[in-house]
Amino acid sequence: MRQSELFTKTQKTLPKDEESKNAKLLLQAGFIHKEMAGVYSFLPLGRRVMENIMQIIREEMNALDGQEIFLTSLQDSAPWRASGRWSDEVVDVWFKTKLKNDTEIGLANTHEEPLTALMRNHIQSYRDLPVYVYQFQTKLRNELRAKSGIMRTREFIMKDLYSFCRTKEEHEQFYELAKQSYLKIFDRVGLGEQTYVTAASGGSFSKYSHEFQTVCEAGEDTIYIDEQQRTAVNKEIIDEPEYDKSKLKEAKAVEVGNIFTLGTKYSEALSLLYQDEQGKKHPVFMGSYGIGPARTMGTIAEVYADEKGLVWPEQVAPFLVHLIALPGVEAKADGLYDTLQKQGIEVLYDDRQHVQPGAKFADADLIGIPYRAVVSEQTVKQNSVEVKKRLEQNPQLIPWEQSYEFFKQHSFASRQGHRN
Amino acid sequence: MRQSELFTKTQKTLPKDEESKNAKLLLQAGFIHKEMAGVYSFLPLGRRVMENIMQIIREEMNALDGQEIFLTSLQDSAPWRASGRWSDEVVDVWFKTKLKNDTEIGLANTHEEPLTALMRNHIQSYRDLPVYVYQFQTKLRNELRAKSGIMRTREFIMKDLYSFCRTKEEHEQFYELAKQSYLKIFDRVGLGEQTYVTAASGGSFSKYSHEFQTVCEAGEDTIYIDEQQRTAVNKEIIDEPEYDKSKLKEAKAVEVGNIFTLGTKYSEALSLLYQDEQGKKHPVFMGSYGIGPARTMGTIAEVYADEKGLVWPEQVAPFLVHLIALPGVEAKADGLYDTLQKQGIEVLYDDRQHVQPGAKFADADLIGIPYRAVVSEQTVKQNSVEVKKRLEQNPQLIPWEQSYEFFKQHSFASRQGHRN
Repeated sequence: MRQSELFTKTQKTLPKDEESKNAKLLLQAGFIHKEMAGVYSFLPLGRRVMENIMQIIREEMNALDGQEIFLTSLQDSAPWRASGRWSDEVVDVWFKTKLKNDTEIGLANTHEEPLTALMRNHIQSYRDLPVYVYQFQTKLRNELRAKSGIMRTREFIMKDLYSFCRTKEEHEQFYELAKQSYLKIFDRVGLGEQTYVTAASGGSFSKYSHEFQTVCEAGEDTIYIDEQQRTAVNKEIIDEPEYDKSKLKEAKAVEVGNIFTLGTKYSEALSLLYQDEQGKKHPVFMGSYGIGPARTMGTIAEVYADEKGLVWPEQVAPFLVHLIALPGVEAKADGLYDTLQKQGIEVLYDDRQHVQPGAKFADADLIGIPYRAVVSEQTVKQNSVEVKKRLEQNPQLIPWEQSYEFFKQHSFASRQGHRN
Repeated sequence: MRQSELFTKTQKTLPKDEESKNAKLLLQAGFIHKEMAGVYSFLPLGRRVMENIMQIIREEMNALDGQEIFLTSLQDSAPWRASGRWSDEVVDVWFKTKLKNDTEIGLANTHEEPLTALMRNHIQSYRDLPVYVYQFQTKLRNELRAKSGIMRTREFIMKDLYSFCRTKEEHEQFYELAKQSYLKIFDRVGLGEQTYVTAASGGSFSKYSHEFQTVCEAGEDTIYIDEQQRTAVNKEIIDEPEYDKSKLKEAKAVEVGNIFTLGTKYSEALSLLYQDEQGKKHPVFMGSYGIGPARTMGTIAEVYADEKGLVWPEQVAPFLVHLIALPGVEAKADGLYDTLQKQGIEVLYDDRQHVQPGAKFADADLIGIPYRAVVSEQTVKQNSVEVKKRLEQNPQLIPWEQSYEFFKQHSFASRQGHRN
């Protein structure tokens, strides 16, 4: 895409109340826009990152035999009353509104109840199980405070997967597969090294659940890491007798995903039952598995950004190459842009005519695309293009004809299979 | 996909209050689920149709140089107060809710106001124009009644495009391109023949706007068609002096899209200004362009369904082929399924073991996939597969080795380029 046509500009002033590093940088670079505290819109660059993250997640959900659906934001109160979670005292983040006839309805803060009710139409027999259902849907949560940028917001898309199994044993097998799938997702988006499967409280469902915690100074959680096992324990349960704090390393971390054994809490409350081979009825054994793509994006921003701006891993970057044309050689740069486009390489091409080279370089660092490619009079003389990875100090000169192949290799290695 | 693994089942009983043909069939076939009146979730088959429709729209929006963004459902009241549309007496479909600090906020029924406010950060000069911005985002509208199935709901995804131009002339050029783009979209989703560009009232913005009306008995609108010109006039303005009712054909129709000249109403109210070459400030000239993918899907259901069930055009169908295995030749059918999958042909494979052939045929008719392919003892004897288009009476026998090529040709003709 030509940057002269991209409608967003990097911003010089920021909303006054913005505290978090991820939101400051993403606002400044024009990836997001702040609608109000804890509510952010996604602009073209930000939407592309979100789309890349969601596509990686979708591929891994499909690999788990997940079936994609799309539930609603408006929710009938009936299934929530049945599960005991309609009251604002039980769930303190409800947004509610009213139909014209004064009936109170809820705005989705999660979807266990409506989905469990829905599945009654489709699960009757042991032959209908197991099934795994997921969606990317907006959650609305009336958070008292929202101060972590796009990492904790009042409105966000969540990928939520739900599993429906016959027995606890069948559930546990899937739960283990889901855990591996999540590790693969965080690895693919570029957070593999910093992310730990973390034992956490199971809430009202079971003794423990698992969180995926990414080590990061801006994190709201504290975890204790066992580096050898690549696991961690959330502070909330570290005092349980089975953990030995002294052998673990304390760190701040962001919860980028979580997986829960729900058991039969919702299936019993909402009568989601199946008949076994003998015709006997049992409640379905459930689990839920969440990842917030925007929180993942915010965490990537927090983990990798430096003093100059954002730094995107290749797999999720809005473009692979940021091509910059310096004055006098625009036609040459145009040619390279066209060639790269034809090769299917995603390029943001800074063809802006009224912007100084220094400002172009500063914008490129702020936006954080993995490869910067500069075409200048000097490089043209040497029949080459100057390429620099975002975090490297020294650029390398790559001969003109090799540059397509260079980027194509990187493009195929990191990004194929999940881009449309 | 194997139908034995698809979690949805065709339904025998329907919600009692359902009146519309589209919702009845889509519910019965397991494409959607009714959460409450006017609020429907999309199950795997329905989501695939939605995705296909949205991908066609996305491709055409990108061809118009539209840049995709994603705004929010929660909306600050400030820009709405500035435009005079915050009051429930002005906009009678508002859903509103409250933050913890008791601040009233809106739930998006449309996005002109927040987007106009947002664009102030990115449009300052004539050099920044024109730009075109679009999204697929949920609209929430507190309709008094909802009785047209998925064609008029309280919650729906809308594709809304907004244009920002320097002058009325520049706007009119784009408006004409958008009109052609819309016709192409309705053509590609299979509604080209039945859809007319229809002159309608311009509301508070300008004298006229344009609707895209699809002739359909279930439509809420009445239009007057000029078949030669392929245009129509909405009943609401047919008595204007420039129209001659006697020469036009009356028909019921569904408004599947609309395009509006907004002019400077919002840019003036919200101070979205640009400086011209002389440094003089002007309000930006705007337009908006909407299509509801779910309404499009409902209209396709209404227009094409017969007494046996749904009928999907190839371009939007959830799968291209519905492969049915009859008893005794399952291994042979498995082989065909694997081969078709490998060729990239989208197949729903009815491999269910405890379902009678008659029930499989009835389900295939109800679900409405374009090609039914049956593998039976008889067809296997003849080294062939029995293929029937959904609306045809008589099947044809296609030799085994030619069947891949047969479906591949249809697959490439209708569906490539917009499937992932």
